[in-house]
Amino acid sequence: MKKILSVLLLSGASVASAYAATNTPKNIIMIIGDGMGPAYTSAYRYYHDDPKTKKIEDTVFDRTLVGMSSTYPARVSGYVTDSAAGATALATGHKTYNGALAITTDKKPVETVLERAKKLGKSIGVVVTSQVNHATPAGYLTHNVSRQNYDQIADSYVDNGWKTDILLGGGWQYFIRKDRNLVAELKAKGVDYIDSYEQLANLPSNKPVLGLFADKGLPWALDDTNKNRLSLMTKAAVKYLEALNNPKGFFMMIEGSQIDWGGHGNDIIDAMGEMDDLAKTLEYLEGFVKKHPDTLVIVTADHSTGGLTVAANGKYKWNPDVLRTMQHSANAITKQLINNKITAKLADKVFNFTLTKDELTQLINSKKTPQKDNSHNLYADDHASKVQKSVLKMVKHIIDVRTNTGWTSTGHTAVDVPVFAFGQDKALFNGFQDDTDIAKKIFTLLK
Amino acid sequence: MKKILSVLLLSGASVASAYAATNTPKNIIMIIGDGMGPAYTSAYRYYHDDPKTKKIEDTVFDRTLVGMSSTYPARVSGYVTDSAAGATALATGHKTYNGALAITTDKKPVETVLERAKKLGKSIGVVVTSQVNHATPAGYLTHNVSRQNYDQIADSYVDNGWKTDILLGGGWQYFIRKDRNLVAELKAKGVDYIDSYEQLANLPSNKPVLGLFADKGLPWALDDTNKNRLSLMTKAAVKYLEALNNPKGFFMMIEGSQIDWGGHGNDIIDAMGEMDDLAKTLEYLEGFVKKHPDTLVIVTADHSTGGLTVAANGKYKWNPDVLRTMQHSANAITKQLINNKITAKLADKVFNFTLTKDELTQLINSKKTPQKDNSHNLYADDHASKVQKSVLKMVKHIIDVRTNTGWTSTGHTAVDVPVFAFGQDKALFNGFQDDTDIAKKIFTLLK
Repeated sequence: MKKILSVLLLSGASVASAYAATNTPKNIIMIIGDGMGPAYTSAYRYYHDDPKTKKIEDTVFDRTLVGMSSTYPARVSGYVTDSAAGATALATGHKTYNGALAITTDKKPVETVLERAKKLGKSIGVVVTSQVNHATPAGYLTHNVSRQNYDQIADSYVDNGWKTDILLGGGWQYFIRKDRNLVAELKAKGVDYIDSYEQLANLPSNKPVLGLFADKGLPWALDDTNKNRLSLMTKAAVKYLEALNNPKGFFMMIEGSQIDWGGHGNDIIDAMGEMDDLAKTLEYLEGFVKKHPDTLVIVTADHSTGGLTVAANGKYKWNPDVLRTMQHSANAITKQLINNKITAKLADKVFNFTLTKDELTQLINSKKTPQKDNSHNLYADDHASKVQKSVLKMVKHIIDVRTNTGWTSTGHTAVDVPVFAFGQDKALFNGFQDDTDIAKKIFTLLK
Repeated sequence: MKKILSVLLLSGASVASAYAATNTPKNIIMIIGDGMGPAYTSAYRYYHDDPKTKKIEDTVFDRTLVGMSSTYPARVSGYVTDSAAGATALATGHKTYNGALAITTDKKPVETVLERAKKLGKSIGVVVTSQVNHATPAGYLTHNVSRQNYDQIADSYVDNGWKTDILLGGGWQYFIRKDRNLVAELKAKGVDYIDSYEQLANLPSNKPVLGLFADKGLPWALDDTNKNRLSLMTKAAVKYLEALNNPKGFFMMIEGSQIDWGGHGNDIIDAMGEMDDLAKTLEYLEGFVKKHPDTLVIVTADHSTGGLTVAANGKYKWNPDVLRTMQHSANAITKQLINNKITAKLADKVFNFTLTKDELTQLINSKKTPQKDNSHNLYADDHASKVQKSVLKMVKHIIDVRTNTGWTSTGHTAVDVPVFAFGQDKALFNGFQDDTDIAKKIFTLLK
């Protein structure tokens, strides 16, 4: 600020340009619902609806929609992006090949909006439900030829200068390794480390915070000790950043990472559980922006996952009833079913609704005669047994039939994604834009 | 106008309110891409892309996107609408049950924006590629308890007062019947009747026009004598309406009806063919609005059809190459294949690309040993044989595999649809809205 003002005084520039130069949002919060294509936000409205009322209640997404975004990667990777190229587009304004993190197709690192914000002296917060070195946060925090280099990415967070005032998510196995203990290194450098949600209530105000709460990604929202752990972490991070009292404000990157994992697993139970956690997070931020109108919140997806469709099989209905009362993830339900004798009583208890005789028989058979499951169960245990995969597939099948949900892929699709914004300068994101435009627009606010 | 002005003079109202009352768009053009959910406009961008250039070209949809719309019907019909309830919402601002045309759930007729425009003295045009008494146009032009009452709907157009200055589409079988010849009746009342595209070049200026160009819906865009027949009809209708020189302007309702039929048939060849005809129509209207900035064009869909996804089967690619050079509809290709011996030469000619040996074998087998096709082939001939259905299914399968296109339904889905607008007052449609809001907003411009 001082520098800008003195330059203005020297050059005798008008008040108008001083205004233009300084009237950008103090705080910018960029939020990515990973995999959250238009079918997810539409489905969430009907999941969120109270069928006892005459009207369908609107959601935080409905209140804040401003436009849509295309998501294609660099031409070399065709029309369907992965999360690394998607994060690179949203973070840097550059198209790149699938798998690349904040580098161009010729592998040159490019500045991210987070790095620019840090250069400008803003405080930095990153909150995700995946491991903190997963593709999307890594696209803002590092530069790498491949998102698969998990250890290297975690190392780079430490070795290339610690960029975050607060970083929350999962990732013990990448930060506390046999070959290197990044947590110990960071502690030695004065970073405060926490590893339980309870500690979020008492964060220090005089040093950076790293919070890791799981080995890789956090537990599913539905299984976690706090079913709204993204909201919980976000509230703590915002409170922490506010307490820093940085006159230059803060930049945050928040990701509802596991919406995408629900999509990959063709798992509507957890896709909706994760959407609900993201929605609660946005509702909290709506309140924050009301109190701090100099804050801009942008929400979008990097792509859509799973080819989710809200209705299927020629039937004109989608029935989210059973989803609304679900108490456990598909995987947690599955574990109960494989670790115990499958009875009507057990099934009704773990699903939290009464199964039909047919459904029960299908479950029992899926356990007795396990079928091979070729689908990409990102979220199943790494070493899931054949029977676990078979029962899991049946659990999801029963819910898909009940709800009439459709899926076409265990990967991503190229449908445009919705863009939401609220707070200062939200109109900048009105209408259609490419994902790279979102970064370019944020850069114009970081000058 | 005269009436408004004299009231203003009497009441001494301010210039500002006179301005507000009269500064609404002179012409309003409401366009529906039936079934055109977000996957269709996204897919169209990649279909429309020239892969030889570095950048992906934007489309008329990209240039004009302003928001999105929810499409759910009245609660009694759940969350997934049909085209009748969808048309009713867009035309009247009322939610109704699936199947209902411009009546409420308790079966009371409600005014449509087209009827209001007519009351205000605007000229009226309707241009569709379905029969003119199909659900969407009927939702603007009549009131009926069921869209299935095709003859009754056609009768109502005549018996309840002819509402259109120009009405173009298909429908001979409903207008020239054994029990009643509506065309003869209309001619007797002074309506000009045409039944070939050539006649569009010389429309009268002193009487209403009815143009019917097919028994039911028009041929597929790809098979028609003019592959851009929606654009052709639209240009002729706009020219006709302009020549009327009505100081109160005109209201048009235009529908790309058969995008939906491509979706029902899970037929990406024709879905893209129909999208292209709609895009060309919008491009023409972009030019018209440039010359007539007092015109408002709104474009949306009533719902999405087929559960189309742009990529499928776990693969991160969508390959529209073969779609770009397609010369015939899936059905026309099929007819060639069943009426002739299937050779590599014939197949390459009708598909306009070189088939693999496997693809050729699949085609030959689908003809030799026809499989039952349970899919809802709205667009296949009414009396398609078992072999025709079997080969048609294989034709579509080959294209789906080539392009990596996904489908989950032969019906509709509940995903929100994009909203596009250009010209005067386009900002009224910014952001999220319900389909009923679109009608309500248009009503505010019709006062």
